[in-house]
Amino acid sequence: MASFDLKHFDYQTLKTLSEADEKALAAALRQEIINDVSLNGGHLSSNLGIVELTIALLKEFDPYKDDILFDVGHQAYAYKILTGRDLSTLRQKGGVSGFQKRGESEADKFESGHSSTSLAVGLGLAAAKKLKGDTSATVIVIGDASIANGLAFEALNSLDDKTYGKLIIILNDNNMSISKPKGSLSTFFNKVRTSVFYQEGAGKFKKIFDHKGLSWFYHLGVHFKNFVKRVFTAPNFFSSFPLVYLGPIDGHNSKKTEKFLLRAKNIEGSVLLHVRTKKGKGFLPAEEDESGYWHGTSPFDPESGLPLINHPDSVSFSHLSGEAIKLKMEKDPAAVLITPAMKKGAHLEEAFKAFPERCFDLGIAEEEAIEVAGGFALKGLHPILSIYSTFMQRGYDQILNDLCRMKLSVLIVVERAGLIGQDGSSHQGIFDAGMVLSMPNTALYCPYDGASLTKLITEADFTFPGPTFIRIEREFDEKNASSEPLKEEDGMIYLPGAKEDGKILIGLGKEGKEAILSLRGEQDVVLLNKLHPLPEKLISLVKKKKLIALYDPTSSEDGFAASLSKDLLKAGYQGHLAYKTVPTAFIEHASKKEQLEEEKISPSLAVSWFKNLD
Amino acid sequence: MASFDLKHFDYQTLKTLSEADEKALAAALRQEIINDVSLNGGHLSSNLGIVELTIALLKEFDPYKDDILFDVGHQAYAYKILTGRDLSTLRQKGGVSGFQKRGESEADKFESGHSSTSLAVGLGLAAAKKLKGDTSATVIVIGDASIANGLAFEALNSLDDKTYGKLIIILNDNNMSISKPKGSLSTFFNKVRTSVFYQEGAGKFKKIFDHKGLSWFYHLGVHFKNFVKRVFTAPNFFSSFPLVYLGPIDGHNSKKTEKFLLRAKNIEGSVLLHVRTKKGKGFLPAEEDESGYWHGTSPFDPESGLPLINHPDSVSFSHLSGEAIKLKMEKDPAAVLITPAMKKGAHLEEAFKAFPERCFDLGIAEEEAIEVAGGFALKGLHPILSIYSTFMQRGYDQILNDLCRMKLSVLIVVERAGLIGQDGSSHQGIFDAGMVLSMPNTALYCPYDGASLTKLITEADFTFPGPTFIRIEREFDEKNASSEPLKEEDGMIYLPGAKEDGKILIGLGKEGKEAILSLRGEQDVVLLNKLHPLPEKLISLVKKKKLIALYDPTSSEDGFAASLSKDLLKAGYQGHLAYKTVPTAFIEHASKKEQLEEEKISPSLAVSWFKNLD
Repeated sequence: MASFDLKHFDYQTLKTLSEADEKALAAALRQEIINDVSLNGGHLSSNLGIVELTIALLKEFDPYKDDILFDVGHQAYAYKILTGRDLSTLRQKGGVSGFQKRGESEADKFESGHSSTSLAVGLGLAAAKKLKGDTSATVIVIGDASIANGLAFEALNSLDDKTYGKLIIILNDNNMSISKPKGSLSTFFNKVRTSVFYQEGAGKFKKIFDHKGLSWFYHLGVHFKNFVKRVFTAPNFFSSFPLVYLGPIDGHNSKKTEKFLLRAKNIEGSVLLHVRTKKGKGFLPAEEDESGYWHGTSPFDPESGLPLINHPDSVSFSHLSGEAIKLKMEKDPAAVLITPAMKKGAHLEEAFKAFPERCFDLGIAEEEAIEVAGGFALKGLHPILSIYSTFMQRGYDQILNDLCRMKLSVLIVVERAGLIGQDGSSHQGIFDAGMVLSMPNTALYCPYDGASLTKLITEADFTFPGPTFIRIEREFDEKNASSEPLKEEDGMIYLPGAKEDGKILIGLGKEGKEAILSLRGEQDVVLLNKLHPLPEKLISLVKKKKLIALYDPTSSEDGFAASLSKDLLKAGYQGHLAYKTVPTAFIEHASKKEQLEEEKISPSLAVSWFKNLD
Repeated sequence: MASFDLKHFDYQTLKTLSEADEKALAAALRQEIINDVSLNGGHLSSNLGIVELTIALLKEFDPYKDDILFDVGHQAYAYKILTGRDLSTLRQKGGVSGFQKRGESEADKFESGHSSTSLAVGLGLAAAKKLKGDTSATVIVIGDASIANGLAFEALNSLDDKTYGKLIIILNDNNMSISKPKGSLSTFFNKVRTSVFYQEGAGKFKKIFDHKGLSWFYHLGVHFKNFVKRVFTAPNFFSSFPLVYLGPIDGHNSKKTEKFLLRAKNIEGSVLLHVRTKKGKGFLPAEEDESGYWHGTSPFDPESGLPLINHPDSVSFSHLSGEAIKLKMEKDPAAVLITPAMKKGAHLEEAFKAFPERCFDLGIAEEEAIEVAGGFALKGLHPILSIYSTFMQRGYDQILNDLCRMKLSVLIVVERAGLIGQDGSSHQGIFDAGMVLSMPNTALYCPYDGASLTKLITEADFTFPGPTFIRIEREFDEKNASSEPLKEEDGMIYLPGAKEDGKILIGLGKEGKEAILSLRGEQDVVLLNKLHPLPEKLISLVKKKKLIALYDPTSSEDGFAASLSKDLLKAGYQGHLAYKTVPTAFIEHASKKEQLEEEKISPSLAVSWFKNLD
């Protein structure tokens, strides 16, 4: 059996492999992916499912000349290896990104990280090439959950070869998004999977008939076939769009996949090739997973599949927020829970199990989820929306124009706020504060430990006229921590220091708490939870100081720092404001600790910075 | 013939009207709408088309108990009159809003202003009522262009009566959005309109069969009918979703419309009733309009249809930006133009006519439009995206995560920036500066006259690594103005004053220019065009002053004012910053002049405010 150099692979050798070698390569790729993900964490199920399809893609298309876009881009691990990248540094500082990334290789033409952008970008790429006379292919690989998002639909609805040129859409159908997808499109996929009428698709005999000048007969055949399908099968969603639908085919059957890719390439006009793949293929725990556990994973033992726990005596803030939401729903029968596909990521499974009638998972549809929450609020219920900070960006207009403008009381639990570590630049939760603070009628909290976030969620009273945002950092809280609780009043904790040097430190978040505590008794310090509206006490307290220092390692400087600057100047403050925040920039993948150090905003650096300020 | 009190109408009298009276009422409503819009401006075509449908809705549903939502909400003029509102104050300060508005009447359950939110909100409303045991109806009236937006699709895809309860969707199909809609859904609607197989829809005989205990026969009939349809007609887009599709029917046939509304009410489960209406019905110029001219209109002469021009010797900034874009495309063969349905509003018709192959109208699909522009930039073309400020909010994530993160050079012409007058709170362009300034890799300009905006567009060189935003106010420029041009350097004009009192005024936009000019020679003043990155000169110039005053009547205080505050404090500034801006609030409908006065930010108030500052 051939051995493969998976650290410097040349995709052009793929065409020279025997069938047996290709099988061996697929196995080796899977082993490599399992190893690298088990060490570094990352996306597993989708990457294991797409190995043969990726090999076939790279045999039929040129990754440098053609444009091959993976929607979201987290299922491109095999693609990365086969285009010469060493995956052993996956998601590590300076190493290979978990997503397609332009700076990494000329084979990556786009960076996404967020779902369902690929088709619309593909239209732009194809249209540009059409104008330039570039005949290279535009290939989009998109999953069955991502294609159900509104942005993907908009692009499907615009398909028009005469205007935008041809797209080759590979629908990677593994019946899985982050967890089991819902909705009509998903129902359609389920039907298609089992229908005998969708096995081969049109075009099988085109070549033969073309050869004999009998293409009219072929076309008649296709039409008859479509006619028979329409009579006996469920309506095909994709018939609504001007594309040739092929499949579904088995994406683990390499020969068949290659044959259909070739067909897709040769057909005139846009094509959708429906490929069925098995999520997690080759790793039993992931194959059998129905919950989405293996969609994205932390480091694990590749033999047993058991997690390698970094924090045995601690529990994540995210886990605590999931528990608090369940508690809140127990206490408050008017509480309802809405989430756009974050049931697993935000630890909401228990709430969904306990209150199935009051819990709503909308799938990857952030805009819709916000409007649905608004609908509940309009009827006097108490909607809790759980959403990641970075994905909340998708709902800016719905939050502003609908929730804020109508002053609807929705509790928005903003998960993965602040620096988020290894998912990197597309996933940082550092922009939400700026977003929220520029909108009227909002309340914004940044709890600094497990107790403070639990209290905010369980004691929410839905009386604030507008959305209330609670930011949940990607952080850990000590289990059974018995430290003396800090006394919070009006959204802040003020600890007067012994030194009378006219300066004060305002700290935010878990790191802020750490910095504040290490200065306790010595310097004047404030641990701030309520960022907006600002506690009245805060302005009157800090106004007298000649130097105010803000330590906010949770947001970009154009978030809370800008807002505080404006409020201080508005209040007539004429002293000095210094701040240590995340820059307004895209922070690349690394551990959160490394990111804090790289940006010089770790708690210890903040403490010595503050001490030296004058 | 009956006469009607259209200033205090009681919708309950509708049921008592004879057929002739109802016809007379429809005619009277049309006359009232034409009169009020001709005086105040507003949406015309869609409101004239929907008169009979609105009467039928109010005969079958209770506007206070049931939830009747008009998507966007600008086609509810007849609804407003029939639920007791006096439309003669339409869009005037303190008068009736141009959209559904909760504060105005208990019959308005929701406020939108932006397209395609109604279905998702409807899901939330229906689900809330299901939980509460409220059996009232949830009725959504949505147009054929709005339903093609991604957010509407997400809601259709989620339809599930068991989870969310029943929706009654009235598709108001007038083959018109702002201008002629495009895309596959639109093609489908065109086919359906002419197909003989979609005239009546299912359910015609249900009552009879139900009565005789023969509902199985009825159901067999429906299935057979659907079978026949499927064989002989194009695939029905709506078959993909769990709803009963009825129609299309003629929305001007009152009896038929009522009959089908009753049927829609009685059918178990969600229904889509496809109603065809004639845009502009009853006003010939609007009936014959194919361009969208009569979609939304300024005041006009109701006899001739000719516009009543308020500004005979001036031209709108928007018009100038449309001309500048065309000029740019003439000079630069790499320039392409992308817009989400704003061809008419942004005066792009001439560019589309001149360069059809380089112009792309995506319909109401802001997210998609931004991604398509990104695709062009990735291939080295020079995309110009023309979009309204308020609708750009829909694309926050696409701008941040895709354009900014990949540093794609897209020129974004932000139309209707600043206060926009009578469209009111859902349309103000006061939030875009805050949005853009919180993102990395952006350039932001706020031109102050026609010459400055024309220069920015025609001389754009697409070298800035990221999107460049040019804000276009809803303003007018004098034609053939011959005033001596001001000399702009590095994005600003500095005019030193005679007084040495240590203060300086920074002005923005058209009103800023007016204020600056009236202080010229007297005080130190700066007219600022480049808001980001800030001109280096600006900081060094103003830093020495003990008082900096910012006059920004174009943005909320959490926009440029917050950003400038932060930058000044960061630069170590220790003086006073005072500012006059739009508040971070929702500004209601009134003329722009009235809004400036109401918020105390007119140029003359700004000048006297500055003079008195110390």
